[in-house]
Amino acid sequence: MNSRERFLNACRCEPVDRPPVWIMRQAGRYLPEYRELREDHSFHEVVADPELACEVTMQPMRRFALDAAIIFSDILVIPEAMGQPYGFPDGGGIEMEWAVRERDDVARLSTDDIAGKLEHVGRALERTRRELGDDRALIGFGGSPWTLATYMVEGGSSKHKSKTKAMFYAQPEMFDALMAKITDALHDYFEMQIEAGVDAIQIFDSWGGALTPDAFEEASARWMGELVERIGDRVPVICFAKGMHHLPEVLASTEADVQGIDWTARLADIRDSLPANVAVQGNLDPTLLDTTPDIVERETRRILDSMGNRRGHIFNLGHGIRPTAKPENVGRLVETVLQSA
Amino acid sequence: MNSRERFLNACRCEPVDRPPVWIMRQAGRYLPEYRELREDHSFHEVVADPELACEVTMQPMRRFALDAAIIFSDILVIPEAMGQPYGFPDGGGIEMEWAVRERDDVARLSTDDIAGKLEHVGRALERTRRELGDDRALIGFGGSPWTLATYMVEGGSSKHKSKTKAMFYAQPEMFDALMAKITDALHDYFEMQIEAGVDAIQIFDSWGGALTPDAFEEASARWMGELVERIGDRVPVICFAKGMHHLPEVLASTEADVQGIDWTARLADIRDSLPANVAVQGNLDPTLLDTTPDIVERETRRILDSMGNRRGHIFNLGHGIRPTAKPENVGRLVETVLQSA
Repeated sequence: MNSRERFLNACRCEPVDRPPVWIMRQAGRYLPEYRELREDHSFHEVVADPELACEVTMQPMRRFALDAAIIFSDILVIPEAMGQPYGFPDGGGIEMEWAVRERDDVARLSTDDIAGKLEHVGRALERTRRELGDDRALIGFGGSPWTLATYMVEGGSSKHKSKTKAMFYAQPEMFDALMAKITDALHDYFEMQIEAGVDAIQIFDSWGGALTPDAFEEASARWMGELVERIGDRVPVICFAKGMHHLPEVLASTEADVQGIDWTARLADIRDSLPANVAVQGNLDPTLLDTTPDIVERETRRILDSMGNRRGHIFNLGHGIRPTAKPENVGRLVETVLQSA
Repeated sequence: MNSRERFLNACRCEPVDRPPVWIMRQAGRYLPEYRELREDHSFHEVVADPELACEVTMQPMRRFALDAAIIFSDILVIPEAMGQPYGFPDGGGIEMEWAVRERDDVARLSTDDIAGKLEHVGRALERTRRELGDDRALIGFGGSPWTLATYMVEGGSSKHKSKTKAMFYAQPEMFDALMAKITDALHDYFEMQIEAGVDAIQIFDSWGGALTPDAFEEASARWMGELVERIGDRVPVICFAKGMHHLPEVLASTEADVQGIDWTARLADIRDSLPANVAVQGNLDPTLLDTTPDIVERETRRILDSMGNRRGHIFNLGHGIRPTAKPENVGRLVETVLQSA
């Protein structure tokens, strides 16, 4: 069983020799080779250049025996392709060039030829597939409609997402029009990624956890479900709705094949609370990678042991890896999962 | 049934005519009268002066028909009394004068005469009780040992609490020694508050949600449970462990009388998952107070209706009120709860 088969089997809750393993944001700042490359190229340059994006995607694949690569890109390429560019003005938070506040702003967003505008991502995927070979899995991704809407309405990073929530509660028609447009753009983008050869799509709902259960259902899960339906059976879809594992029935309503679970949950309990054909992905606390290899091994084993012989588990962190993670700890994590075979 | 009886009955899951209502951080920046007072007095001045602290505590009680007042103070008075002062250097995040990193730092922290060092809080409580009268409830509070430890170890505000988590995982003896000291200091402080006349104590575990379930049990819930045990039956204890409502059995293990629940949960489901003698407090999304009175009324009613005739509900927000909240929306929230009688 090669890595790609292992990954795809786990997505479908079919038998595997051990859980496949990859790490959210595995191509990133904790790697010295990534930091070195970034000395000469801005974040936007790396995202926009298929050769650089492929190189960065491959960096962790050379260092660690990971079962899957995830293409190096950014969820905000979608608002950008819709006509709302962004930057990191102080090197810190995200700032959109303008914010969506009125009906005219929604009208101004374009859903024309998203796949064409993001052709460089397709080329990066094709190039990565060639370098990766056929034995390892390649994951494409996008932000959830809700999560993208928070950046688009707030005008960038924000703590409370209060303007986006206010639009949802007070101007539901405008909100729905915005969500329909984002969903259309994402659908085009995901179709293009599938044509470029991804084995699965992950939808990052980073900010679903800002919502009440009813609002999460209506403002986020509903739109992820629409994307899952439109993607159909071509590739498995992984939803990662951080902070929402306490609503398994709402997560299941998206009909995603896999649910990403953050580290605050007992993974086996969540697995048992989801329908038998839904896999889980997770859920080591990312801050553990700041500690020592022995602690990482112990806590990785704890999760593996808790899952027992349950089918449908992709090992991962419970959130993206942090720049402070030590590569030797990542190494031990991967070895520990490999040894569980 | 007066407000104090209503509040205490709800804490004990005894019959009430309607849920009592108060608002976390109800004395705060959303009130013009608070902002006016703060033009002449720093935050530290208001906390340290019984007259000013009482005045600020009473401000929302004059404006709204709230059932309980919560004394205006700060969770960080405990590290300060233990010898670790703090400030807000850029008007933004919290910065401690030094950080707890080594065994010597733990040894340096004092638990001597905490009640004496925080006597001004006792005087503020006595003064507030006189102004408030005997018909309304008065709540005292403190941070949870874990939450205080995060500020003390990180050296102030932090996003990931990674140094505190690293201490918990890699240096458990030092961590436990620190927690035992904080717990002792808090116990002295709570005893003093009870002598000064509070009707209940709320323990704010703002950062328990940064932990895995096992770590939350060991690093936070265990120490809150010790405080609840030491307080005994004298006054009800409310635990507010934000982001941890998916672990009702761990919350219940603290034996707190009331569990504060954030807005991401379905309150009635949490109530049903806790033992019958444990009340819940919550859980309107605070950002709703940025919208309109009609939306606030609708969402407040939705929570009240969902709770049906369940005993043991204190109406509150699911987190502290934000500076952007509109006072007219707070008014509508309180009216809506009052009309549910």
